[in-house]
Amino acid sequence: MTISTPLTALLQIKHPILLAPMAGAAGGRLAAAVSHAGGLGIVGGGYGETDWLTRELDAAGNARIGVGFITWSMAQNPRLLDLALERKPAAIMLSFGDIAPHVEAIKRAGALLICQIQGVTEAKDVVVKGADIVVAQGTEAGGHGATRATFPLVPAAVDVAGDIPVAAAGGIADGRGLAAALMLGAAGVLMGTRFLASTESLVSLKAKRRLIDSNGESTVRTSVFDIVRGRTWPAPYTGRVIRNEFLESWSGREADLVRDREQAARAYAEGQRRDDQGTAVLHAGEALDLIGDIPPAREIVERVVHDAERLLGGASDRYRLGQ
Amino acid sequence: MTISTPLTALLQIKHPILLAPMAGAAGGRLAAAVSHAGGLGIVGGGYGETDWLTRELDAAGNARIGVGFITWSMAQNPRLLDLALERKPAAIMLSFGDIAPHVEAIKRAGALLICQIQGVTEAKDVVVKGADIVVAQGTEAGGHGATRATFPLVPAAVDVAGDIPVAAAGGIADGRGLAAALMLGAAGVLMGTRFLASTESLVSLKAKRRLIDSNGESTVRTSVFDIVRGRTWPAPYTGRVIRNEFLESWSGREADLVRDREQAARAYAEGQRRDDQGTAVLHAGEALDLIGDIPPAREIVERVVHDAERLLGGASDRYRLGQ
Repeated sequence: MTISTPLTALLQIKHPILLAPMAGAAGGRLAAAVSHAGGLGIVGGGYGETDWLTRELDAAGNARIGVGFITWSMAQNPRLLDLALERKPAAIMLSFGDIAPHVEAIKRAGALLICQIQGVTEAKDVVVKGADIVVAQGTEAGGHGATRATFPLVPAAVDVAGDIPVAAAGGIADGRGLAAALMLGAAGVLMGTRFLASTESLVSLKAKRRLIDSNGESTVRTSVFDIVRGRTWPAPYTGRVIRNEFLESWSGREADLVRDREQAARAYAEGQRRDDQGTAVLHAGEALDLIGDIPPAREIVERVVHDAERLLGGASDRYRLGQ
Repeated sequence: MTISTPLTALLQIKHPILLAPMAGAAGGRLAAAVSHAGGLGIVGGGYGETDWLTRELDAAGNARIGVGFITWSMAQNPRLLDLALERKPAAIMLSFGDIAPHVEAIKRAGALLICQIQGVTEAKDVVVKGADIVVAQGTEAGGHGATRATFPLVPAAVDVAGDIPVAAAGGIADGRGLAAALMLGAAGVLMGTRFLASTESLVSLKAKRRLIDSNGESTVRTSVFDIVRGRTWPAPYTGRVIRNEFLESWSGREADLVRDREQAARAYAEGQRRDDQGTAVLHAGEALDLIGDIPPAREIVERVVHDAERLLGGASDRYRLGQ
């Protein structure tokens, strides 16, 4: 059981499946599990907690993994990139910001440079600046992203990427998604929400249960949780989250929240400490409709590849092509 | 060259390609061209101009076509549905509103009922109420729609539709899109913007050139043009359009536009009369990145099928499955 693409060849992996470097959720254990299953696990560098990153890189053990950064946040503390590069990762993934200041250090360390984009102009930009792999992320993705949708964005990114492999991200959670992404011209997929609902992800069991109990229509893009957490994302990025009481109470009143942040932030921090799902943010994508269990990451990889292979292999017969 | 699916079998068509019933653009000539090419042309019933619909149904000649309605608008003047059913269409397509009051008349007339949905709850609803075919439309589609994106919406709709064929809509303009839609579990596709940029569509040549000159990132969802045209769409529907000066001048000031509508509507009508592309609305989807010419509809159908067949037929070899 295997699907070979330019992405598997370049990354020297068995299956064209990448783990999204979800801040606070994609730790060393999850990344290692995805890599051991034949994909590429990418630890989420998040907002620059050095201790967290060191611990999770340790937790990945000797697995061959990548490390992902929120580019604008990492740029405020480039020491984080050095810390990751010292571990000789297979790849560094940069999302949300200008890659130019970081390309040389990454290449010099022998890591492949994976660049996530949300638009075609951006795809052209990272190709020119040295991306080895492009991740085209649609608005249906969980967590931070922008407005273009996966289905038309992926082929448009493929058309400008030339020989550089493109991985599709956003809305992908099963073998149908992998097979479809390949038909769109992608060389693989990057999945977040599907791996968030896995044994190894670092969110709480309560949060994982909430993933199972929610669906695509429960999710929405918002800045509310960024504002209350004091994480000022640049435009045009927002986070796709599962709606909860805290969001409903502030949605549409973002300007008030900026003004009254101190009090709201205390209430939020307290809710998060208690793991209160009515308060705490849970980033997740529209693919929730396709997610109904919390298996080990290895099982997710195997299922997705198995189903995609079956769909791709049977396509000729299934559609009675040419008859 | 042919791709057989449950959709082609049910509709008795050669290729699993449907024309979106674009108001004012998908007239009889375009619908007939799509049907003659082996797909199913669907005339856009629009906002209930009886004369327009009669003329376009005449223009379709003896082609076997469908007729599409904006459900909430048609419900204000159900005579339009009777007018369409008298022509014995192959199918009636209903979008945006409750189908229940219309199902019996459509079935009694021997037409298949195609229902377009924008969410999973809605998919369940139309299946229960008697849809013969479900169109799952993502937010990247041109014209009116909602917020869910095509990539995760299609497999989720397939999962609730059971044996009822699902066509994917939104962001599809080439063979890659058809092949991907089939991998997601759809039995075909519905395309709007790709056919808008065809010889036979009813928009002006200036508008067609604007389609070619624009891209996915030029488009946005808005209510501005609905407000100024006095067409009050119910929530949650908005229209995806290509940005222009008129839109920029009112975007974010929708409440002002409602208040000052009379004057703005005069300026808008005058701009539309002159076919001024800086004023007139042009509905189009994110698939614009994939559209670079204005061929006859027949050529579009042939290209899409040819490319999809090649992708599907070559999948086994291309990904060296199972090696």
